Amino acid sequence: MVSVSLQDVRDAAARIEGVAHRTPVVRSRTLDALVGAEVFLKAENLQRIGAFKFRGAYHAMSRLSGAQLARGIVTYSSGNHAQAVALAARDLGSTAVIVMPEDTPASKIDAVRGYGAEIITYDRYTGDREKLGRDLAEERGLALIPPYDHPDVIAGQGTATLELLEMAGELDVLVVPVGGGGLIAGSATAAKGMQPGIRVIGVEPAAGDDTKRSLEAGERVRIEVPRTIADGQAAPTPGEITFAINKELVDEIVLVTDDELRDALRFAVDRLKLVLEPSGASGLAALLSGRVATRPYLRIGVILSGGNIGAARLAQLLASEGQ
Amino acid sequence: MVSVSLQDVRDAAARIEGVAHRTPVVRSRTLDALVGAEVFLKAENLQRIGAFKFRGAYHAMSRLSGAQLARGIVTYSSGNHAQAVALAARDLGSTAVIVMPEDTPASKIDAVRGYGAEIITYDRYTGDREKLGRDLAEERGLALIPPYDHPDVIAGQGTATLELLEMAGELDVLVVPVGGGGLIAGSATAAKGMQPGIRVIGVEPAAGDDTKRSLEAGERVRIEVPRTIADGQAAPTPGEITFAINKELVDEIVLVTDDELRDALRFAVDRLKLVLEPSGASGLAALLSGRVATRPYLRIGVILSGGNIGAARLAQLLASEGQ
Repeated sequence: MVSVSLQDVRDAAARIEGVAHRTPVVRSRTLDALVGAEVFLKAENLQRIGAFKFRGAYHAMSRLSGAQLARGIVTYSSGNHAQAVALAARDLGSTAVIVMPEDTPASKIDAVRGYGAEIITYDRYTGDREKLGRDLAEERGLALIPPYDHPDVIAGQGTATLELLEMAGELDVLVVPVGGGGLIAGSATAAKGMQPGIRVIGVEPAAGDDTKRSLEAGERVRIEVPRTIADGQAAPTPGEITFAINKELVDEIVLVTDDELRDALRFAVDRLKLVLEPSGASGLAALLSGRVATRPYLRIGVILSGGNIGAARLAQLLASEGQ
Repeated sequence: MVSVSLQDVRDAAARIEGVAHRTPVVRSRTLDALVGAEVFLKAENLQRIGAFKFRGAYHAMSRLSGAQLARGIVTYSSGNHAQAVALAARDLGSTAVIVMPEDTPASKIDAVRGYGAEIITYDRYTGDREKLGRDLAEERGLALIPPYDHPDVIAGQGTATLELLEMAGELDVLVVPVGGGGLIAGSATAAKGMQPGIRVIGVEPAAGDDTKRSLEAGERVRIEVPRTIADGQAAPTPGEITFAINKELVDEIVLVTDDELRDALRFAVDRLKLVLEPSGASGLAALLSGRVATRPYLRIGVILSGGNIGAARLAQLLASEGQ
């Protein structure tokens, strides 16, 4: 069975050093007072491309051979992983092909194209993006770097937590957003490796609770494609590798509603002065809505996983009063 | 003549350590590429109360005697200094009276009241806030902590630049927003003290160019109360102490329009994932609009001075396309 170790995360950290940002840990006494604990926010919205995804994509690609980088990379993603692969390819002197749904917002397509990647679109209702990716990899000799279900991607994502623990010191609890499960798999690997007593809590949108259900069932469960504003967490089923890791290392999954995500976005703007996307705010939403048990002096780390939301969409979400 | 030294700023840093946040220095390769230089953003929007003002207020108040703290503090401000004094008073076990215009937005009054301060309102068209403050100080035995024209306030504000230079290393240029001139006076003191060759550039809103005009005239000039979205920089005339310092240490003042400020706010949300208020974005606006001469590898520090803008107002400014 494939697994990822703390040493793999440490190796990943050495590879991305000076390329990825060492993002700040943000404190807020207002948040501490509201939550009733000491909260350390790892601001991955300030990471390159605006989300943690750059860590895993760059790390995985940096381990490819020079010959493979010369042939190029392929991936499928409409979100932050697409930008991450496109930018990492440019940084590494490689080229990237990104398979995206044809109805992807123009702003996201422009961002990916801006990094010099080739875009191939498909119909999200009839197409199979994973098959498209595999076919392209085979036909053109490209390396497929999937969004989460890959040990090097997982090890790279874990570096955010490695830094958080280095910067904040010992933590009692770590709260991490869950989509396909790559971030939390890497985070839990790093956290439990460094501090075995730490409690790792995942957060999913209530409409997209595939990992929670899968952990309860003891096997991967597939749900309807979730309808939630947290588009970065709308995976219908956990990854195979990520689930195997998370089954061992994740202590609990809590759920947050879209209204709670909107409240967290607004709190982030009003009080933290940070721009988050809904998925990126889910850990914060879990704390603010009381889904994480707290007590005074409990030290809680939270990964704010991303901030890729256009100004117009942010304005719209801020204006809607939790409807 | 009153003056402030690098040692005063260092002493202030020691006093606020562990109380004020050591805010992060944020990098953006997108910004570097746009500007054509290496830019280091000191994110004082992530400071307590959401702006650098906490530094100066807390520092000045921490130097008062225990007896004076027991009697209390008074200040006048409708903006960030009001919150800073209210919060610092609470931290120091003192009490604060804040003189605010009676038409101050409820959200700002609530924030100040939330920190436990007493609010006294006046009519901004007929009242004299400085006289009100002095009278209250005399009648009630309160210590007056003005928003900028005070050496201990100036030394405290300078600590943001002290940290920036410690964190970013040597800089060629420092870009600082200018309102009453306290932040830039402290910043220039710290910067020129540590790195005599550094160029210090102030930024004012085009409609509020009192410091630029005053520096050109060689004496303090008073202008009409400026109409600008940068309400934190709407001072009609420089402070006496701040102007004396800035006359010696500031190399240049550049101006930005409200449209440029809006563009900078939008850039901060879209690309930096930071919430800024218009005044807080003025240094960034100066860079983005080409008002600061750059060249490759030039190392430019910018103080992002604050982020106190409500979610609704931010949404409104983001939605308005530079009208």
